[in-house]
Amino acid sequence: MSAAPVAVIMGSQSDWTTMRHCADTLEALGIAFETLIVSAHRTPDRLVRFATGAREAGYKVIVAGAGGAAHLPGMTAAMTPLPVFGVPVESHALRGEDSLLSIVQMPAGIPVGTLAIGRAGAVNAALLAAAVLALSDKALAERLDDWRRRQCEAVAERPNRDV
Amino acid sequence: MSAAPVAVIMGSQSDWTTMRHCADTLEALGIAFETLIVSAHRTPDRLVRFATGAREAGYKVIVAGAGGAAHLPGMTAAMTPLPVFGVPVESHALRGEDSLLSIVQMPAGIPVGTLAIGRAGAVNAALLAAAVLALSDKALAERLDDWRRRQCEAVAERPNRDV
Amino acid sequence: MSAAPVAVIMGSQSDWTTMRHCADTLEALGIAFETLIVSAHRTPDRLVRFATGAREAGYKVIVAGAGGAAHLPGMTAAMTPLPVFGVPVESHALRGEDSLLSIVQMPAGIPVGTLAIGRAGAVNAALLAAAVLALSDKALAERLDDWRRRQCEAVAERPNRDV
Amino acid sequence: MSAAPVAVIMGSQSDWTTMRHCADTLEALGIAFETLIVSAHRTPDRLVRFATGAREAGYKVIVAGAGGAAHLPGMTAAMTPLPVFGVPVESHALRGEDSLLSIVQMPAGIPVGTLAIGRAGAVNAALLAAAVLALSDKALAERLDDWRRRQCEAVAERPNRDV
Amino acid sequence: MSAAPVAVIMGSQSDWTTMRHCADTLEALGIAFETLIVSAHRTPDRLVRFATGAREAGYKVIVAGAGGAAHLPGMTAAMTPLPVFGVPVESHALRGEDSLLSIVQMPAGIPVGTLAIGRAGAVNAALLAAAVLALSDKALAERLDDWRRRQCEAVAERPNRDV
Amino acid sequence: MSAAPVAVIMGSQSDWTTMRHCADTLEALGIAFETLIVSAHRTPDRLVRFATGAREAGYKVIVAGAGGAAHLPGMTAAMTPLPVFGVPVESHALRGEDSLLSIVQMPAGIPVGTLAIGRAGAVNAALLAAAVLALSDKALAERLDDWRRRQCEAVAERPNRDV
Amino acid sequence: MSAAPVAVIMGSQSDWTTMRHCADTLEALGIAFETLIVSAHRTPDRLVRFATGAREAGYKVIVAGAGGAAHLPGMTAAMTPLPVFGVPVESHALRGEDSLLSIVQMPAGIPVGTLAIGRAGAVNAALLAAAVLALSDKALAERLDDWRRRQCEAVAERPNRDV
Amino acid sequence: MSAAPVAVIMGSQSDWTTMRHCADTLEALGIAFETLIVSAHRTPDRLVRFATGAREAGYKVIVAGAGGAAHLPGMTAAMTPLPVFGVPVESHALRGEDSLLSIVQMPAGIPVGTLAIGRAGAVNAALLAAAVLALSDKALAERLDDWRRRQCEAVAERPNRDV
Repeated sequence: MSAAPVAVIMGSQSDWTTMRHCADTLEALGIAFETLIVSAHRTPDRLVRFATGAREAGYKVIVAGAGGAAHLPGMTAAMTPLPVFGVPVESHALRGEDSLLSIVQMPAGIPVGTLAIGRAGAVNAALLAAAVLALSDKALAERLDDWRRRQCEAVAERPNRDV
Repeated sequence: MSAAPVAVIMGSQSDWTTMRHCADTLEALGIAFETLIVSAHRTPDRLVRFATGAREAGYKVIVAGAGGAAHLPGMTAAMTPLPVFGVPVESHALRGEDSLLSIVQMPAGIPVGTLAIGRAGAVNAALLAAAVLALSDKALAERLDDWRRRQCEAVAERPNRDV
Repeated sequence: MSAAPVAVIMGSQSDWTTMRHCADTLEALGIAFETLIVSAHRTPDRLVRFATGAREAGYKVIVAGAGGAAHLPGMTAAMTPLPVFGVPVESHALRGEDSLLSIVQMPAGIPVGTLAIGRAGAVNAALLAAAVLALSDKALAERLDDWRRRQCEAVAERPNRDV
Repeated sequence: MSAAPVAVIMGSQSDWTTMRHCADTLEALGIAFETLIVSAHRTPDRLVRFATGAREAGYKVIVAGAGGAAHLPGMTAAMTPLPVFGVPVESHALRGEDSLLSIVQMPAGIPVGTLAIGRAGAVNAALLAAAVLALSDKALAERLDDWRRRQCEAVAERPNRDV
Repeated sequence: MSAAPVAVIMGSQSDWTTMRHCADTLEALGIAFETLIVSAHRTPDRLVRFATGAREAGYKVIVAGAGGAAHLPGMTAAMTPLPVFGVPVESHALRGEDSLLSIVQMPAGIPVGTLAIGRAGAVNAALLAAAVLALSDKALAERLDDWRRRQCEAVAERPNRDV
Repeated sequence: MSAAPVAVIMGSQSDWTTMRHCADTLEALGIAFETLIVSAHRTPDRLVRFATGAREAGYKVIVAGAGGAAHLPGMTAAMTPLPVFGVPVESHALRGEDSLLSIVQMPAGIPVGTLAIGRAGAVNAALLAAAVLALSDKALAERLDDWRRRQCEAVAERPNRDV
Repeated sequence: MSAAPVAVIMGSQSDWTTMRHCADTLEALGIAFETLIVSAHRTPDRLVRFATGAREAGYKVIVAGAGGAAHLPGMTAAMTPLPVFGVPVESHALRGEDSLLSIVQMPAGIPVGTLAIGRAGAVNAALLAAAVLALSDKALAERLDDWRRRQCEAVAERPNRDV
Repeated sequence: MSAAPVAVIMGSQSDWTTMRHCADTLEALGIAFETLIVSAHRTPDRLVRFATGAREAGYKVIVAGAGGAAHLPGMTAAMTPLPVFGVPVESHALRGEDSLLSIVQMPAGIPVGTLAIGRAGAVNAALLAAAVLALSDKALAERLDDWRRRQCEAVAERPNRDV
């Protein structure tokens, strides 16, 4: 059983450039997580094993990043009752429009909570996982509140017009 | 303090046609919820009151449906640490493409877990809320498992070729 | 073992309206086929069983129709070495643009031969399956040539200007 | 009370690269203005304070630039009766298409006069603000006429074919 | 010289279905206006006469609605220093996406404040014209405040779930 | 040899609904024309015969209407030096966006002058053919001038506000 | 009166990068032409003068290149009976999609024969102009035939696989 | 008669950058193939000769790559009963969206099995050709199974987080 409440999965090594922002944010919030490569297309067995066993493995939230015909988030959601959050990785030709539609347009019955294309989506998947976990973890809720407060305070009053 | 863990908010009465599918699904899963009209544009005060007070009011998850330049889910997420799930309501001219992009393309820092455009998204927002709540509610987890099992069993082996 | 060389699978009963045109065309060409509902999302077990066993079951070509975040063709292709042809079913809000991108934009390694959105794609999936099977079936090759010849001859010289 | 009739607000420092063209144009026209960072998502309190107080603060026109799920112009317009002009900042993945739709597709009741994506939009927001202010400021009207005349005269008769 | 401060122009009679919502809103706010058909393509002379003479005619704000390759708002803005607000009329095949881009993507130098596609945009063009005129018309400012307050108050607390 | 200077070709009978507007406009201008069904895909032989022989047949301008993956205009242009004007017929799922791109995005070397999607494009293809033929036909030039003048005069000054 | 049968007009100097390919092709075909900057938005007077006088000036065909909200081709076509061919210049944010729709989606009554976005479109506008002029200029017809033949012969049988 | 079962054709030398990935994959699988340049637009004769003679020449599968208004795959399919797989080459301005729609949206009657835009599509066209040929070639079937197995095994368990 995993000690980590969050699994961050992705379709290939190349998605790490995007998904590392998810990992960094989880770390900043003090949330334990695993990072795994699970390719829906190249390793379907691994996908089935991971997804059907994710709850028993102790995970509480799954973040899945994928690009192009991005089937990983939706197929994972099809095989686990855990909340799944999808990050559309920016694809080359269509710049993530294909990734976004492949993830978000799930049919009624199997939800994937989808975040923005690329880095912003990866950061926000971590924050959304944190918001979910914070519902039953007061210490985390406070760390998340702090994070949000600091984010707010970091916004300057005026643009630096010299850049 | 609300006894209901889920708030289902929407920008206008016309969104109800879509969001009722969220309400119906929550009901089917035995999850209490409130339905509120909160227009980001026409009732910004109400939005601020609702969003900043949502955690204290006892809500755990917020589902927000809106169409066009759909600012309700993102602005709510800006003012509450609770998880917010957004449902892009199908708009007239652009058929929900504007709603989808306005909801899902949030900047790093403020997440909205976005579902599909229209009815499927409304149903799935309920299921995603259920998945989140089920993390700390065994009875609900079982009801959700049941719901998914029945959904699976309801799929016929072959298409009825007479329709 | 299936006596039929073609499996026509689809995500739900509602896809039949589109996929029946595939079935009709296969029938017109005298090609045996099975029709099955295999939902990637609602019946992932069935998908695994079907796709991993399709070659042993005697199928030679698989036609898969699905709409929205259409994962069925690609996930099937991930689990069988047989040629898979995908038919993007027209979705409600985005009119099949999501279906098309979810099916065609497969990553290198797992191919899906994708046809047009909707009825034309369903007809053409049958014709493409026929073209593949005709490579080693002379009688079918002749029936297909006939079908194409008749199609050609059916084109009037001039438009009927009275309609 | 602000001595400046125009407030140029933007969601983050990174928007300055675009919005500086608005500032430069206002300066060229001799119109006083303030530049402020107001993030709808990260500083919603500041947004409320700014927007609800903008008229009393003496502003006459607000120019708001934002990118992605760009809620700043619309939310500002929701909280002030002043004319609000929106500049869609070019986003990374979708190149400002998301910014444009998030700003322009406002529901009936709360208008945002939207300009082009990027630099051209920033320049034109300044010119539109000038056109509005010139309605009751003859000197400005003349300066604007001059600016337009010079712009017209600066157009060469023929392209320089040596570049 | 026109007694009316607002000219509502449109490319053809068929645009009236959309632009009547602009007229209705101006009427509701007690703002005098003229409605004219000015086709950039079929009546370019009329366009030149109207646009170059609009300021002298006493207009203060011009609202221009057009669809498809919608050149009317931009060409009007090219020939008058008055603020021009553009309403993209929904086109048949592309549902107003062509109208929107043709109006909003103006080059630096000639601004058109663009509203949403269709009815919402027509209503909002009136409201934006009102906001501009209210800068120097206290009575109108109060009527506009009233209108906005009533709009706010008209939003029900909860959706009527019986529809 | 054809006595008619214009050939109006189309991919199928179903395109007649659109292309009849081309025929009607040519008739109104007194220009002789032939209407032919030439399917690039179903009758490629006929396409080759028609296109390679079009100049010798006496045609001067070819108007080609087609929808979806619309190859007829471009393939005709590949096989004749005559000017070819393409009309994108509105397709079902993608509403003519596929037709438009398939026709207009020709590579350097083989031009197709492309008109608007649907009826407007069909009318305009006739008018563009007329403009070309009028270069060496004074009587036609006068009829075209008349047609344009009447079109201009038919534009009412004001919208009929009672519809 | 111009000795040149073709006018190549463009909205600004920056369009020359694209339109030079039109000029180069006309030169290669031995067709005289003028190049002019005519900005629909910044020099509307010049546009009116040019377009209304183009036929008297002796031009036979007009090629107009413009980007973004590209009104130049359509407005020129509104004021001259000559054939007008439009070249959508690639815009920055939307990569010419706005240019294309602004040019091609003309309403019934005023045609613009539209070519591809960018360089290919510029080359092809020259070739289409040549095809039109060749209808009454045998020598040019032969030069155009030659050009096409050489283009055909220049296509290698096989790709050079060493690049 | 060709000893090679696969013809890899493309519209121009510039498509080789994409199509070489098809060639490389066929080589890796030990499948003989020819590479040919066949331009639908610049060498229509060659297209007709190639496509009508492809079956007699001994080919079994045709892979066709093309960009922009990509007519090569569809026109080839119109003239041969062999299975044709199309690869949309990424175009400059529209990044392959035009190529994709021009290839995939074929009308009922003439199928093209379409792969992803760019390199992934080129690789997958080879794999799909292999899957088709493997139906009657056991040795190839085993090589393809091997290739797929190695692809699967090459997927690391976890992302390398140091890159």
